[in-house]
Amino acid sequence: MNTTSNLTLKNSIQKKIDLKTKPIGALGTLEALALKIGLIQNTETPKISKPTIVVFAGDHGIAVKGEVNPFPQEVTAQMVYNFVNGGAAINVFSNTNAIDLKIVDAGVNHAFPKTLNIINAKIASGTKNYQDQPAMTLEQCQKAIDKAGDIVSEIHGNTCNTIGFGEMGIGNTSSAALLMSYFTHIPISNCIGSGTGLNTEGIARKKQILSEVYNKYNPKTPLEALATYGGFEIAMLCGAILKAAELRMTILIDGFIVTAALLSAQAINPNILDHCIFAHSSSEQGHTKMLDFLNVTPLLSLNLRLGEGTGSALAIPLVQAAVNFLNDMASFEDAGVSTEIDKS
Amino acid sequence: MNTTSNLTLKNSIQKKIDLKTKPIGALGTLEALALKIGLIQNTETPKISKPTIVVFAGDHGIAVKGEVNPFPQEVTAQMVYNFVNGGAAINVFSNTNAIDLKIVDAGVNHAFPKTLNIINAKIASGTKNYQDQPAMTLEQCQKAIDKAGDIVSEIHGNTCNTIGFGEMGIGNTSSAALLMSYFTHIPISNCIGSGTGLNTEGIARKKQILSEVYNKYNPKTPLEALATYGGFEIAMLCGAILKAAELRMTILIDGFIVTAALLSAQAINPNILDHCIFAHSSSEQGHTKMLDFLNVTPLLSLNLRLGEGTGSALAIPLVQAAVNFLNDMASFEDAGVSTEIDKS
Repeated sequence: MNTTSNLTLKNSIQKKIDLKTKPIGALGTLEALALKIGLIQNTETPKISKPTIVVFAGDHGIAVKGEVNPFPQEVTAQMVYNFVNGGAAINVFSNTNAIDLKIVDAGVNHAFPKTLNIINAKIASGTKNYQDQPAMTLEQCQKAIDKAGDIVSEIHGNTCNTIGFGEMGIGNTSSAALLMSYFTHIPISNCIGSGTGLNTEGIARKKQILSEVYNKYNPKTPLEALATYGGFEIAMLCGAILKAAELRMTILIDGFIVTAALLSAQAINPNILDHCIFAHSSSEQGHTKMLDFLNVTPLLSLNLRLGEGTGSALAIPLVQAAVNFLNDMASFEDAGVSTEIDKS
Repeated sequence: MNTTSNLTLKNSIQKKIDLKTKPIGALGTLEALALKIGLIQNTETPKISKPTIVVFAGDHGIAVKGEVNPFPQEVTAQMVYNFVNGGAAINVFSNTNAIDLKIVDAGVNHAFPKTLNIINAKIASGTKNYQDQPAMTLEQCQKAIDKAGDIVSEIHGNTCNTIGFGEMGIGNTSSAALLMSYFTHIPISNCIGSGTGLNTEGIARKKQILSEVYNKYNPKTPLEALATYGGFEIAMLCGAILKAAELRMTILIDGFIVTAALLSAQAINPNILDHCIFAHSSSEQGHTKMLDFLNVTPLLSLNLRLGEGTGSALAIPLVQAAVNFLNDMASFEDAGVSTEIDKS
């Protein structure tokens, strides 16, 4: 993006916002949101086209023993069926807000029927357990990034310009915590929360196990970190975010796992945040620290801790409202409304 | 509401929520919201029917001199025309979220054409200036409450069960501050903010003027306080809230003015909060203190300071999402998803 023309556009969008029939700044966060989407789309009249949530599902070697996860690994596949059958929270919220929903098998440890209405991008049937060896090879990690890019390109080709991401993978808060620690340099024990429902004893065990895992490796590059600590769904999230930015799509970010994937993407493309809107602040404690690290404030804070892209799905109406006020509100002049009393 | 059956219903709705395919509590605030709406509607399967925002507009005697308001009084009427023509923020957000919008002339100092698409409930052409005498008579205040009740009854009869309120009235943050001080016993100077855009000097002047006004009177009843310090639109908001509760509608509350009206309504019906959902925390500083006084946390905090019901309009999709997950998400049993690993 050319810096001079970018500044010109920024000023002209801000002027358009300030001339709307409201006191200066009275639409608060929505004004900044409208400005950002205008800059992403490089126009004073941005549009939200075919908002889409893509949920990547994958299994984790560490989850087999059930030491870090309160739910058994089978739940990943069971939840994929639940997504396909329309019974999960993300289905309901996508329906509520007219969002397209795509489910991707990134690497679930289950053979889904070929006729099932999901995108098959399986890298392998679950990652290796990083207690023993890296979760995946560098080649698998790059393949996951590339496949996710292809998926996003196809969705973009289908007129979508606004995209959010979800994930399903029993054990994936462990991967996210490891990646968070790697990219933020926050000690691993401060990156660990209750996941989907561990008690105090479970959290202590998770901290001990993941500290050992963290210290076992010394990744030299973002890709190596992602391959070592990641999951297939997290590597795909990273690839999807990178491609969506390249295509100048507006990217919604929510939750602990998706934000960990964003940290990986940011290490590869330092300008990635220019394309991202933060949808929701999770009640997984590590998420707040990630948001502080990124110096961002999400639109919503509803104490969700579910993943699936639910925070992004719930934020879509606010994104739509921001774009609509920029396009559809009258200016003082249009509406014949007096401006502030001149006190000079 | 019978307390025993209420407790039974509360337990059965909570059980229904806990059996959904998600960890216990993972939908955070939306779970409490679904429960509350179920209790308001007295059912495990609540529905949101024809959500409606009613904007009451009225003028204030104090605004004529322009000492407490950065915009001139004419803006109240000009904004009513803007609402009718679809150019205001509340129009855009109502359209975005499929909300019915009604505009009520509660007492604007302007003769609107009879053919204009508004509800004519004018009590008088603006209130008196409470620097000199009470804003309105007790009879006018009661009439405003009654007329607003009739308006809400008609909207309810038209199948609406979920209602939010907006207001337009140059100078009405002054009325709201006076009422806030009266009902919360917070000193008047701590109830005053910048309204739609006063500077530091303007705020100091507003504090001095309103302190004098506050101390000039000694209202003995909620109705007398509302008549003394109120505006016609605020008295109507109070009446509308009372009637909506009586009709067991779900009431969305946002903003400094609407919450001041709620404080008045609460003084008349102490159970009013059972019917209210708090939509948005305004950046008008007094609003946060009102919310603390009421011990409530709104769904959204977007730094809006516009009024018009914009906060409530933006919260409607969250209300819809809460009800939809309660009705439409699969249970673990329905979806064949395993529950947590039994660690015993």
